[in-house]
Amino acid sequence: MERELVRYLCERLPAHPRLLLGPGDDAAILRLPERANLVATTDMLMDGVDFLLGQHDVEKIGRKALAVNLSDLAAMAAVPLAALVSVSLPRRGGESLAKQLYEGMLPLAAEFDCPVAGGDTNSWDGPLVICVTALGVVPPERRWRRSGALVGDVILVTGEFGGSILLKQFDFTPRVADALWLAEHSTVHAALDVSDGLSLDLARLCEASGCGALLDLAEIPVAAAARQLAEQLRDGSTPLDHALADGEDFELILVVPPEAAEVLLANQPLATRLTRIGEITTEAGLRAMDDEGQIRTVAARGYEHRLDS
Amino acid sequence: MERELVRYLCERLPAHPRLLLGPGDDAAILRLPERANLVATTDMLMDGVDFLLGQHDVEKIGRKALAVNLSDLAAMAAVPLAALVSVSLPRRGGESLAKQLYEGMLPLAAEFDCPVAGGDTNSWDGPLVICVTALGVVPPERRWRRSGALVGDVILVTGEFGGSILLKQFDFTPRVADALWLAEHSTVHAALDVSDGLSLDLARLCEASGCGALLDLAEIPVAAAARQLAEQLRDGSTPLDHALADGEDFELILVVPPEAAEVLLANQPLATRLTRIGEITTEAGLRAMDDEGQIRTVAARGYEHRLDS
Repeated sequence: MERELVRYLCERLPAHPRLLLGPGDDAAILRLPERANLVATTDMLMDGVDFLLGQHDVEKIGRKALAVNLSDLAAMAAVPLAALVSVSLPRRGGESLAKQLYEGMLPLAAEFDCPVAGGDTNSWDGPLVICVTALGVVPPERRWRRSGALVGDVILVTGEFGGSILLKQFDFTPRVADALWLAEHSTVHAALDVSDGLSLDLARLCEASGCGALLDLAEIPVAAAARQLAEQLRDGSTPLDHALADGEDFELILVVPPEAAEVLLANQPLATRLTRIGEITTEAGLRAMDDEGQIRTVAARGYEHRLDS
Repeated sequence: MERELVRYLCERLPAHPRLLLGPGDDAAILRLPERANLVATTDMLMDGVDFLLGQHDVEKIGRKALAVNLSDLAAMAAVPLAALVSVSLPRRGGESLAKQLYEGMLPLAAEFDCPVAGGDTNSWDGPLVICVTALGVVPPERRWRRSGALVGDVILVTGEFGGSILLKQFDFTPRVADALWLAEHSTVHAALDVSDGLSLDLARLCEASGCGALLDLAEIPVAAAARQLAEQLRDGSTPLDHALADGEDFELILVVPPEAAEVLLANQPLATRLTRIGEITTEAGLRAMDDEGQIRTVAARGYEHRLDS
C-alpha cells in the first residue's frame, strides 16, 4: 500500500536541521546557506539498463541511484544539500522493494550529509525506475565546468578505471570530499565525473573547452577489475581498452594548470591517488604517442544511449 | 542519437539570467535570491498510468509533466526557480518523442518563468517515463503545510472538480499566481493541491492537521466535465461523485481563518473563483449533512497507487 510506504518513509527518514519541511507534504522546504549558488543534478536508473533487478542486490541498487548523483555534485565541487527520490515500482513486491532501496540509500545519504527530502512513489506494470535529484551548494565564485580547460593544462584523474561492471558500479565512493578539498586548496580549470567512459568523457570535456588532449597511455591507472574483465571476456580487448571505455568508474577528471598539478602529484593530498594521464593541446580530439614514437588518434569510446529516430 | 538530442536541447533551451550554468554539464548552477528557503518537489509520470502514449498528444504529455510539479509549487506558495527533466525514452522514435515533449513543456516553462536547467536523457526497451523536479523559493517566514488547519477554519477551493480525465488533466493552469497573491495578501493556515481526488486529499490534510471537516456538499463546485463523464459512464456515479473522487484537478484546497475567508469570498480577488466547501472540525474524518439534516460520513476516495507486498 502506498500509504503504508509513505508512513514507513516519514518514520524512517531522520530529521535534519536543514529540512524545514520533509517528506509527506506537497514539496520539501530546505534551509539554504547564505551567499550560495544552487547546484542541481538528476539521474534516472532503469532496470535492464543500469542494473538487473533479479541479479543485483536491491540495497546496492538504491545506493547506486544516490551515489551517481553525488558523483555529479563532486564534479561541481558542491556541498550536498538534499536529495529527492522518485520511483516507479513493479506492483508485485513493490512495497518491500521500495524499503530495500531506501535501506541501501540512507546510509550513503547520512555519510554525505545529504538527507532525502521527499520524492514520488508510484507503481505500475513496468520495470523498476529510480530517479534521484541531488541538490548542492557552491560559493558564488566557484563554477567548475567542462569548458574551462586551457592548452598546456595537465589532465589528472582520481582512482583507477575499467571493469566497474564487476563490482565498483555499486560500491564506488563519490569523490565529494576530494573535490571540496581541491576547490579550497588548489586550482581546477575543468572537471567532470567519468560515468560513460574515460575516453568518451574526456573527449566531451575537450570538445566543450575547444581543445584536445595528448594522453600518456602508459600512465592510465588501470583497475585490477579491468584486467580481470579482459581475462574473463577473452574477446581481444585489453585491460587498457576497458580502462578507456568501460564507464561507471565515477572517478573525476581534473584539468589543472601545470604548477598546481606538480604540487598535487608530489603531495598526493587526497584520500584517493591522483594520476597524471596527459595534457591539454590545441589540436582537437584525443591522441597518444605509440611505441614507435608516432602520434596517433585515440578513439573516444564509452556508453551512449542509442535512439532510433 | 543521444548526442544529437543534447545538442538540440542546448540550442533550444533559452538562456536565463538565473541559469549560471545550464544543460550540458554534470549539473546546473542556479543563482538564488537572497534570504530565501528552497522548495523542491518531484513527480514521475509513466506511460499507461498518467498518460497513454499512443492516444494522447505528446506535447500535452510534456506540458503535463511540468504542470503537475508547478502545481506542487503553488501548494507551497513558492516562486518557481527552475526545473530538471529526466526521461526514459523508448528507443524507436525516441529522439522525435523527446523533442515533442520539450516543445510541449517549454511554453509553460516560459509562462511560469521556470527555465529547464538540465536533466537526464535515457533510452531503453520499456515505456516512456518522465520525471520532472521543480525548484522554487519562498521567504523564510512562509511555510504553507498540510498540517496547519485549525478547528473553525473555513475550507476554500479554487476552480471546479471532476472529469479531469476528459481534458483538464492536460490543459490545467497551475495555481501559482493565485497562491502567491494569497500568500502576500491573505492568511492561509493549510494548503495542498488536489492531485488524487478532492475528498482523499482533503482527508489527508485533515489527518495531517489532527482534525476533520464538515462539508457542504451542495457547494462543491462540480465541473461540467464531471457531469459529462457521469453521463458517458452511466455506471450510477453522479457528477458530485466525480468531483469528490476523480483527481488530477490540480486545484488548491486552502484552509483559512473565517475572517480571511469572508473577505476573499466577497472580493474574489483571484483569476479563478474561490468557493467555500466546508469548515474544519474537531472530529476526525470527512462528514456532511444529508437532505434530512443528518450528519453522515463522506468517504475519502481518489487515486492511490496499489502495491502488493
